[in-house]
Amino acid sequence: MKKEYLYSPGPTTVPPEALSVMGAPMFHHRTARFRALFGEVVEGLKRVLQTGNDVLVFAASGTGAMDGSVANVCSLGDRVIMVNGGKFGERWGQIGRAYGLDVDEIMLEWGTGVTPAQIKEHLTDQVKAVYIQLCETSTAVATDVQGIAEVVGKTDAILVVDAISGLLCDELLTDQWGVDIVVAGSQKGLMIPPGLAAVAVSKKAWGLVKKAALPRYYFDFVKHKKSVDKNDTPYTPAVSLIRALRETLALVEAEGRDTMLANAAKYAKAVRAGMEALGLKLFSQSPSNAVTAVLMPEGADGAEFIKILRDKLGVTFASGQEALKGKIFRIATMGYLNDFDVLTAVAAVEHVLRAMNVSFTPGAAVRAAQELLVG
Amino acid sequence: MKKEYLYSPGPTTVPPEALSVMGAPMFHHRTARFRALFGEVVEGLKRVLQTGNDVLVFAASGTGAMDGSVANVCSLGDRVIMVNGGKFGERWGQIGRAYGLDVDEIMLEWGTGVTPAQIKEHLTDQVKAVYIQLCETSTAVATDVQGIAEVVGKTDAILVVDAISGLLCDELLTDQWGVDIVVAGSQKGLMIPPGLAAVAVSKKAWGLVKKAALPRYYFDFVKHKKSVDKNDTPYTPAVSLIRALRETLALVEAEGRDTMLANAAKYAKAVRAGMEALGLKLFSQSPSNAVTAVLMPEGADGAEFIKILRDKLGVTFASGQEALKGKIFRIATMGYLNDFDVLTAVAAVEHVLRAMNVSFTPGAAVRAAQELLVG
Repeated sequence: MKKEYLYSPGPTTVPPEALSVMGAPMFHHRTARFRALFGEVVEGLKRVLQTGNDVLVFAASGTGAMDGSVANVCSLGDRVIMVNGGKFGERWGQIGRAYGLDVDEIMLEWGTGVTPAQIKEHLTDQVKAVYIQLCETSTAVATDVQGIAEVVGKTDAILVVDAISGLLCDELLTDQWGVDIVVAGSQKGLMIPPGLAAVAVSKKAWGLVKKAALPRYYFDFVKHKKSVDKNDTPYTPAVSLIRALRETLALVEAEGRDTMLANAAKYAKAVRAGMEALGLKLFSQSPSNAVTAVLMPEGADGAEFIKILRDKLGVTFASGQEALKGKIFRIATMGYLNDFDVLTAVAAVEHVLRAMNVSFTPGAAVRAAQELLVG
Repeated sequence: MKKEYLYSPGPTTVPPEALSVMGAPMFHHRTARFRALFGEVVEGLKRVLQTGNDVLVFAASGTGAMDGSVANVCSLGDRVIMVNGGKFGERWGQIGRAYGLDVDEIMLEWGTGVTPAQIKEHLTDQVKAVYIQLCETSTAVATDVQGIAEVVGKTDAILVVDAISGLLCDELLTDQWGVDIVVAGSQKGLMIPPGLAAVAVSKKAWGLVKKAALPRYYFDFVKHKKSVDKNDTPYTPAVSLIRALRETLALVEAEGRDTMLANAAKYAKAVRAGMEALGLKLFSQSPSNAVTAVLMPEGADGAEFIKILRDKLGVTFASGQEALKGKIFRIATMGYLNDFDVLTAVAAVEHVLRAMNVSFTPGAAVRAAQELLVG
């Protein structure tokens, strides 16, 4: 009878509407039926990403699309700026070096975000592309994408934003802000299981693609564009996930993109208020609405905290990654959530702290969160 | 009330046991629960592939794993042999050239297979790897992998076999025959939806991986091996598909690998007998047990044939690809099939030919197939 609650920053809870279509019989993808489905999904993604640019969809996890966003726009030795403020920013650098790029890696103190001024300082005529995160999932830091886009937009460089965890939580106006490549993943705000990734590619980015000499095949943007223009894919698509995505995109449409963003902001604010009411410290100096990182109370064991939550209470939070392992816990406020789910997450922290004999004012977190949720 | 029947050479029918788990609530992948699941799936794949070699699993379609099987073992300018006997052999060449390899492409007449003697003729000391298909899906040709492995095994070159469509239909004894890299895909004999791919990598292949200088990240074999050794994945895995795969691997185990292979052989033989009883000609000169390619009767329109089957009868066959479009049709005998499903496929051909006013002896195909199925 133990109910399960998923507050990990990916995967997130998949709504029943999407779960049920994945249990439906398989069908062939080289058909009008698939093309109609795929066309609808691509249009839905464009609305979510607020873009008229090409949107390409891959059977892959988000990292695959990150890989493609390097291989398709650069040549060996190209100078790129990659911002490393956590585990996913670090990944940009790993990909860049794997491809033999000249990576100007901006190392941030974990918990802080990069500023437009910092990017400006590093931008030279040689820089081909700037790689950042909308939300750095490992530190719960939101980036000032709009400000950075303004700076990068004045140069020949393109701006590539990993929006995998931030999408539909932290605002991202692809075309209005001038973001050249946006990377999206399926198992966060898009509310379906992992295994699907997408990129939106601007005209300016296509200009680089033409000249980019790095080898690529599976994630070849040109091949994917040729296919998507016919509502098709160059290689076998992940049909069951695409079907699920049609359902969640319809839910986003019904809820309203703006409402989802406003809700994520409200939920994250409520979680932060709840944690602070317990005397806990927040880790991020520029908190994202997608996920909240909270420092473990002094002396409490982070691994035990996560374990009690999962094994006793059925609640999944994420621990910290790398150097933050056991030192923080993270609560996601992405996707399929309502006020009561947020209250449950906050209450779960009280329950586990009580089990661990950490002292706090009982009910303080729930009361603080509730105040903001009903307000 | 129209029932749907899927005889396309991927995707194949997904058994209800696998469909239902994809409709179950999502859970987090950085957990003991996932590691237990993933470990089980990897062991199951090893049994299917008859290998003690490392098996790596990717969130990707089969083409992604083909891409990785080039990028991980070669360096720029390396000499490779790639056999092009159809659309998927052609893909090896495309990948090889995308990565700047010196591709010795053996062009076959479509419908024929490459022989060990031909491979031997092309093998020089410079050749790093030989790329072939177990079953060339586009032409329904099975390759003599055992014979080719014997030839390649005597050299420093490795043998890479795309077994995506042939797996569990045409025999493949990875270790016994000495196949260095086997590529598998999810939506064929493995009976789950597309979006998951795997490779088995031999010690000899790992030797090449160490020296291979081509850039790679998402499909980096070394990163995947480090993770799979801990029953984990380097990037977010396609959890719902992995769950489904556990179910179908259990079905394979229960049915017996040998029984599945024997059944595929029996089914393909019955389909061929049925088609020949109608006076139709088979396209493949070395027929696979995974799929049967049949030449359209003189004067009958291939597109209309496929359309009537799908729209009127609910039956999905595949048409020909590229130059064979409209000239052949293909009936898969992969995965979740029994005698009655094969009879239905064969009967469907009679039904559509009758609808198209093609003359034949009524019931001849069904009778011929049934004779072999009950025999």
